[in-house]
Amino acid sequence: MSGGFAESGEEGKKLQAEVLKSAGGTVRIVGPNTLGIVNLSHNFNASFLCPLKGCLGLLCQGGNAINEVEYIARKKELGFTQIVDSGNQADVGICDFLEYIQADPQTKAILMYIEGFRENEGRRFLNLAKQITKTKPIVVIKVGATELGRRAVSSHTGSLAGEDAIYDAVFEQAGVIRVKNSSELIDVAEALLKLPRMKGNRFGILVDGGSHSTMSCDTAAKYGLELAPLSSETQKKLKEILFPHSPVSNPVDFAGAMDADVRVLSNAASLMLKDTNVDGLIVAGINFGGYSRWWGSSEEVVAGFTELPKKYGKPMILHNSVLSEENPALKTIADGGIPVFLDTERAVRCMAALVKYGTYLETVKAAGKPRAISKKARPKKVEQIIKGAKAAGRSSLFEIEARELLKGYGLPVPKSMLAKTKDEAIEVAEKMGYPVVAKIVSAEIIHKTEAGGVKIDLKDKLAVEKAFNEITANAKKYNKGLKIEGVMISPMMPASTEIIIGMMHDAQFGPVIMFGLGGIFVEVLKDVAFGLIPVETNDACRMLREIRGWPVLEGVRGEAKDIKAIVDIILKISKLTIENGEISELDLNPVFVYEQGAKIIDVRIIL
Amino acid sequence: MSGGFAESGEEGKKLQAEVLKSAGGTVRIVGPNTLGIVNLSHNFNASFLCPLKGCLGLLCQGGNAINEVEYIARKKELGFTQIVDSGNQADVGICDFLEYIQADPQTKAILMYIEGFRENEGRRFLNLAKQITKTKPIVVIKVGATELGRRAVSSHTGSLAGEDAIYDAVFEQAGVIRVKNSSELIDVAEALLKLPRMKGNRFGILVDGGSHSTMSCDTAAKYGLELAPLSSETQKKLKEILFPHSPVSNPVDFAGAMDADVRVLSNAASLMLKDTNVDGLIVAGINFGGYSRWWGSSEEVVAGFTELPKKYGKPMILHNSVLSEENPALKTIADGGIPVFLDTERAVRCMAALVKYGTYLETVKAAGKPRAISKKARPKKVEQIIKGAKAAGRSSLFEIEARELLKGYGLPVPKSMLAKTKDEAIEVAEKMGYPVVAKIVSAEIIHKTEAGGVKIDLKDKLAVEKAFNEITANAKKYNKGLKIEGVMISPMMPASTEIIIGMMHDAQFGPVIMFGLGGIFVEVLKDVAFGLIPVETNDACRMLREIRGWPVLEGVRGEAKDIKAIVDIILKISKLTIENGEISELDLNPVFVYEQGAKIIDVRIIL
Repeated sequence: MSGGFAESGEEGKKLQAEVLKSAGGTVRIVGPNTLGIVNLSHNFNASFLCPLKGCLGLLCQGGNAINEVEYIARKKELGFTQIVDSGNQADVGICDFLEYIQADPQTKAILMYIEGFRENEGRRFLNLAKQITKTKPIVVIKVGATELGRRAVSSHTGSLAGEDAIYDAVFEQAGVIRVKNSSELIDVAEALLKLPRMKGNRFGILVDGGSHSTMSCDTAAKYGLELAPLSSETQKKLKEILFPHSPVSNPVDFAGAMDADVRVLSNAASLMLKDTNVDGLIVAGINFGGYSRWWGSSEEVVAGFTELPKKYGKPMILHNSVLSEENPALKTIADGGIPVFLDTERAVRCMAALVKYGTYLETVKAAGKPRAISKKARPKKVEQIIKGAKAAGRSSLFEIEARELLKGYGLPVPKSMLAKTKDEAIEVAEKMGYPVVAKIVSAEIIHKTEAGGVKIDLKDKLAVEKAFNEITANAKKYNKGLKIEGVMISPMMPASTEIIIGMMHDAQFGPVIMFGLGGIFVEVLKDVAFGLIPVETNDACRMLREIRGWPVLEGVRGEAKDIKAIVDIILKISKLTIENGEISELDLNPVFVYEQGAKIIDVRIIL
Repeated sequence: MSGGFAESGEEGKKLQAEVLKSAGGTVRIVGPNTLGIVNLSHNFNASFLCPLKGCLGLLCQGGNAINEVEYIARKKELGFTQIVDSGNQADVGICDFLEYIQADPQTKAILMYIEGFRENEGRRFLNLAKQITKTKPIVVIKVGATELGRRAVSSHTGSLAGEDAIYDAVFEQAGVIRVKNSSELIDVAEALLKLPRMKGNRFGILVDGGSHSTMSCDTAAKYGLELAPLSSETQKKLKEILFPHSPVSNPVDFAGAMDADVRVLSNAASLMLKDTNVDGLIVAGINFGGYSRWWGSSEEVVAGFTELPKKYGKPMILHNSVLSEENPALKTIADGGIPVFLDTERAVRCMAALVKYGTYLETVKAAGKPRAISKKARPKKVEQIIKGAKAAGRSSLFEIEARELLKGYGLPVPKSMLAKTKDEAIEVAEKMGYPVVAKIVSAEIIHKTEAGGVKIDLKDKLAVEKAFNEITANAKKYNKGLKIEGVMISPMMPASTEIIIGMMHDAQFGPVIMFGLGGIFVEVLKDVAFGLIPVETNDACRMLREIRGWPVLEGVRGEAKDIKAIVDIILKISKLTIENGEISELDLNPVFVYEQGAKIIDVRIIL
C-alpha cells in the first residue's frame, strides 16, 4: 500500500524493482502505492475501504477516484463485488483484474477509472472488453494523456493522433461506455443495472409543465436522441385521461391533470411505453415534492408505476428536483427500481447510455462473426515486394512498389510504370494516354514534392520529356550523390473530394487506421477518426460518420461520394496490415473519392 | 396564476386578451400562467413558494424551473431577494422585472431561466444586461429555440443563423454567464457571490493524490484555463513544508504530507495564492472524510484557510468527494465562505465562470467608452444612393451602387464602372488594366451567377467584348422583358482566403453581424460567429477567435492573414448599419483577405 516507489523518481524505481525481485517471480504483487483490493464475493478485504456489498465491480488506477466513486454509490445504496486499485502496477495490472472479474457471476456491471495502459496492454483491454460487453456493461472514466502514448502515433500525421481519439475508438469498438466524471459513472451504472436496454433512439417525454421538457429536449438532441412520434391511437387515449388543454403529442404535458387524479401518472406512462414508436421514457418535473401533500399514500401515487419497464421491456427514468429521501412517493419509486435524477441532463445522459449500449449489442448481433483473416494468406507478389525492399536494405517502399502491393489487395490504384530514361517515359505516357503524372523514384527521397520530384498534368510528349529532365536535375540538386531508380509515370486522375487514410502502430493499442478528409479538415480542424485493426464494416462506417466533415461525403456540396468505396479501402488496409506484419506505417494521401469509385493518388509505406 | 390562457390555443388567447382589456391599461398584469412573484426585500409574497431570504434575484420564464433552482439553492443555504415567474407575459415581461431588480441594492447576483424574448425585447435585454453586469453578475440558463426567432434570420444565409448562436453573442457582449442546468446555475452563483473575480486564466491546483488533479486538468483545458507556472521561490518554500517526494510544481500534491501535519493545508494554499503567476486556486481530493479522524478539531484543520481568498484577492474553490454536512472540518470551511463541490468538474466550471466574468470586466474597463455613432452623420453620397434606389421603387441596390455606398465608409472595394455598351466596356477595361471581371447590372437579377451574368478573369479586349455580348444575351434568355442597366467592369482581384460578413435583422435582437470563413466552413460546418450591433473592437476580435476555422486566419496554412483589416470591415459595417436604418440586409460574400489588407469581391444590399 505504501507510496514512495516508481511514482516518485529514480530511487523509488529501484526500490520497486527490489520488491519485485524479492517476490522471486512466484508471488504476485498488487501495487505498490495502492489503496488495496476488496473481493466481497469471497469476503476478502485488504484495503482502507468498507464498501457495501452489491453487484458492481470497480477497477481503478488511483485511490482517490475509488473513494469518490464508492461514496457516491453508497449514497444511492449501490454496492460492490470487487474494488481494486491497481496502483503502480509493478506486477499485476488493471487488465489482469479485468480478466479475473469477467468470470465473477455476481458482478453485473464493471466500472473503471483509467489513466493509461502499459505498453501493449491496450490491445489486451480491447479484446477483453469486446468479450465482456456481450454480457456485462463496462463504464469508464478515462483521464490524462501520457507522453508515451502521444509519441507513439507521431510521424507525419502524428500531431493529430492525440491518443485520446484512439481511446475513443477503442471504447466505440468494444461497446464500452465512456463518461465524464464519478457522478455520471454511478448514474449510468445504476441505469444499466436496473433497466432494460433501449433498442432504438426514439424517446418519449412526460412532464407536468414546460420547463423540464425543454431542458430535456435540448440535452437529448446533443446526445443524438430523437423524440418519438406518438401514434394517433396513443394520443387519442391520452386525450381521454388528461385535461382538455394537456398537450398529448410528444412531449406529453399533464398541465395539472395529476392534481385532479394522481393515478393518471401510471396510466399516461403506460400508454406512452406501449406505443411501438417509443423506445424509452423520461418522466420529468412531476414535482412530487410540492404537490404530493394533496394526494393519498405513496403507494397510491405510484401504483403500478414501477412495474412498467419490466412490463414493456423498455427503460423509464424519472427526473425530480427534490431528493427522493424527502418524499415518500419518490422513495417508493426509487426503491421500486426506477432511477431518479435531480436534473434532466443526468436523466437524459443515462437514457443516451442505454441507447448506446443497446444499439451496440444490436449491431454486434447483426454483424455476425468477424471476417477470417490469416497472416499466411498474403499474395505471393506482395511478399516478394516486401522481401525485396528489405534485402536491398530499404526501410520504405518505392511508391511504385507500394502501388503494386496495394494492387495485390484489390485497392484502387491508377496504373504506373517505371521509366529509366526519357525515351521510356515518353513511350509509357503515349501508351497510357495523356495527361500523365511523373514522380521521382529514389530510396533517398521521401518527400518527393519538396525535392522538386513531382510534375503533374503533363499533356503531351514534349511536356513528359521536359518533366523527366527537370525531375532528374532537381533530384541531383537536392542531393548530389543520389541514386535515382527512374521516374514513375501514371495517368493524371481528375480531381475530386480528397480523403486521407493512414495506418500506424500505437504503443498501447498496436495497429490503428486513421481516416479524415483532406485539406483544412485534417490540417486545421484535426478532424480525424480512428479504428483499431481489425476493423469491421460497422467500425469503418462509424469512422466515416464520426468526423465533422461527414456532410461533405454525404453530399452537402454536390453529389454524394461513394461511401462504399471508402469503407472498402479501410477494410482492405485492415486486412493488409494484419497479413503484412512488416509494415509499420502506411499513408494514402490523398485518395480522390468520386460519385462512383475512388483512386489512391499517393501512397507511402514504411517497413 | 391560472393556466389555460394563451399557452393553450385560440380560445385561451381570447381569454387572455379579455383579461388585459379588463385591466384597462392602468393595472399592470403579471402572468397569467405563472407561479407568482416574491419580493422578500419588501416582505411581499404572492406565490406558492417559501424561499429563504438572501441576496440572489431569480427571474424565470417557467414555474418548474423556479421550483428546481429554489430547492437546490436551499440545500446550499442560499436565499433570494426576489423570485419571479413571468408566465405568459401578457403585460409585464421578463425585461421589466430585470429593469426593476437592477435597482435593488440587496440583490447581489441575478439568475435567469430564459425560454425566449418577445419581439424586439432581446435588444432591451442586451442593453440592460450590459449596464447591470458592470456591478452585478447575471447567470442564465437559456433553453429552446422559438420558430419565430428561427424565421427572422432567414434569407440566404438564414439557415446558419440558428438563433442560439445569436443568444451566445448577446451573452458574450453583455458579460452574462451562460450555464447548462440548474445545479450549475447555483454553483456559479455561489462562487460569484462568495469569491473575488479571477483576473486571468492561470490556476493553481493543490491535491492529495493524483486522480483529482488529472480530472481537474482535463476539465480545465476544455474551459480554456491554464496551469500557472509556479515561481522557483514558491516551489522552494513548498518543498520545505511538504514531504521530500511531494511534487511542488503545479499541480502540487501533498502525497500524504497532510497526514503528518494538518496545518500544511493552509500553509501550502497560502504559498500558492501568494505567487503572482497564480490567478486562483483549486484544492481537490483532500479527502477530509477519510482522514480527519487522525487530526485535531475542525478549527485546527482549517485554521486560517478560509481567510485566504480575501487576503490575496483571489478565488479558492474546494473539491471534496463527501458532503460537507458529514464532516466538521468541511462544514467549517463551507461556513467560512469557501464553495465546496462534490466533483472536480463542477469546481473547475465555477473557476472558469470567475475567469469569464473577471476578464470581461477587465476588457470593458480597458476598452473605455464605446465609439460615438450618430444616425445623422452618414455621408451625403450614401444618402443619395439609398434615396435614389427607393425613388426608383427598388428594394435592393445595384452592386455598383452598393460598392459606392461601401466606399463612402472607407471599405476596401475594388474600383468599378458601369458600361452601357460593348465599346464602353472595352474602354473602361483598357483604362483599369487587365484582367477584369464583368457582371450584369439589372434590378430584376439578384442571383447574377445563376443568370449567366458574371464573367471573370477577362484578359484582353476581345475577352471583354465576348463577355459583354454573352452576359447581355444570357440575361435576355433568363428573362425576356428584362431591363438591363449595363455591365459592371472591375479589376480581377488575386484569390486568397475567403471570408463572409453579413448583416441581418433578428426579430428579437435587431441588427446583427455574422462572420465566417468561406467554403466548407460556412456551408458544411456552419462555423459562424455573431455580433450584436453596435460591435466594438473587442467584440469583433471575439467573433474572429470564436470560429473553429480561426487557425486559418492565424496562419496555420501559410502566412497569417490581416486580422486588423477584417476587424476594420466589421466595425465599419456596424457603423454603416446604424447610420443607414433603411438597410435591412447586407452580404459581403466573399471578401478576400490577404497578408496585408482585404478586398470585398461581391456585395448585396437589401433595403
